Amino acid sequence: MYKVIVISRQFGSGGRTIGYETAKLLGIPCYNREITQEVSKNCGFSMEYIDDHGEYANHRSWLGRAFDSQSRLNGMSNQDKIWIEQRKVILELAKSPCVIVGRCADYILADNDEVLKVFIHADDRFRAERIVKLYGESAEKPEKRLKDKDKRRSAYYKYYTETEWGVASNYHIALDSGKLGIEKCVEILADLYKNTNS
Amino acid sequence: MYKVIVISRQFGSGGRTIGYETAKLLGIPCYNREITQEVSKNCGFSMEYIDDHGEYANHRSWLGRAFDSQSRLNGMSNQDKIWIEQRKVILELAKSPCVIVGRCADYILADNDEVLKVFIHADDRFRAERIVKLYGESAEKPEKRLKDKDKRRSAYYKYYTETEWGVASNYHIALDSGKLGIEKCVEILADLYKNTNS
Repeated sequence: MYKVIVISRQFGSGGRTIGYETAKLLGIPCYNREITQEVSKNCGFSMEYIDDHGEYANHRSWLGRAFDSQSRLNGMSNQDKIWIEQRKVILELAKSPCVIVGRCADYILADNDEVLKVFIHADDRFRAERIVKLYGESAEKPEKRLKDKDKRRSAYYKYYTETEWGVASNYHIALDSGKLGIEKCVEILADLYKNTNS
Repeated sequence: MYKVIVISRQFGSGGRTIGYETAKLLGIPCYNREITQEVSKNCGFSMEYIDDHGEYANHRSWLGRAFDSQSRLNGMSNQDKIWIEQRKVILELAKSPCVIVGRCADYILADNDEVLKVFIHADDRFRAERIVKLYGESAEKPEKRLKDKDKRRSAYYKYYTETEWGVASNYHIALDSGKLGIEKCVEILADLYKNTNS
């Protein structure tokens, strides 16, 4: 049986909602911003700072830092400190049945046979409509916001895991929430969790 | 409702078996080598020649040809002729409910809303054991055979579709047959076909 479901997701695909709904159906907790909260408590950075540095490459400083070996030699960056703390929190949470959304949990728990690794994605139209509905309009076009968020998540993922984000073979199941519907995705994952032996 | 299921698959992942079993369960036909047969009838190449040129980049001549604009200017290659004929056969077959395995059908039918696009993959150990069981031992190690076949499929796919093979967002559902089990994959796909509205 699976003990933990980890969900990676494109921005606006409904991956977080699918995580919470699946967990609710299974009667287990779902962790997303709860992880940020725990990391904040343990290492002192604010929730907002962790949100921005615990899953996203930061355009302004990222590429410069990533390729500047000097700044790595001088010690850990704040982003590294958050990565290490986040990793600890995730390894601890995964000792009990739960759903974990984002934060490279698929990579961090890769050696754990009781983990079901999920990727949720959808086409741009579905996601653009969804983020406007959820987060409201902003000065930037929704398509631009999607592209930017995905690019930063993907760069963050690649930097810390050295593998590509969104490649099918890195996940046990990848679902198009726009095509299949969020409800159907929840149903498939809950069914797998309940019935499949790993 | 979906009318057609198209399955792309890593070599040895059981994608073909999943295709036939799903089709059987749904009472619709599954096309794989049947496509080769039809193409052979229409354009005269042998089944073996089409098998080798209708889904695989050919190491010996491929890269040379792909980047040699002179040979493209001189007219269509045999591989191009097979691609065009195969495309025609697939568009014709997709007019009726069926399962189609391989041959870039996901790309050829991308504009068809009634198509469910599937990718099947598994880890190297599962696939290596499977191909030895199915096709027997050969002089080449199974891991080498897997890598070679996947590389040639991927290069063929990229050449004709200009998109990456195996990227999760190109499919509506991607499944790890080694982790989930072939039977479970069949069950999920048959259920989606029967119950989901597109």
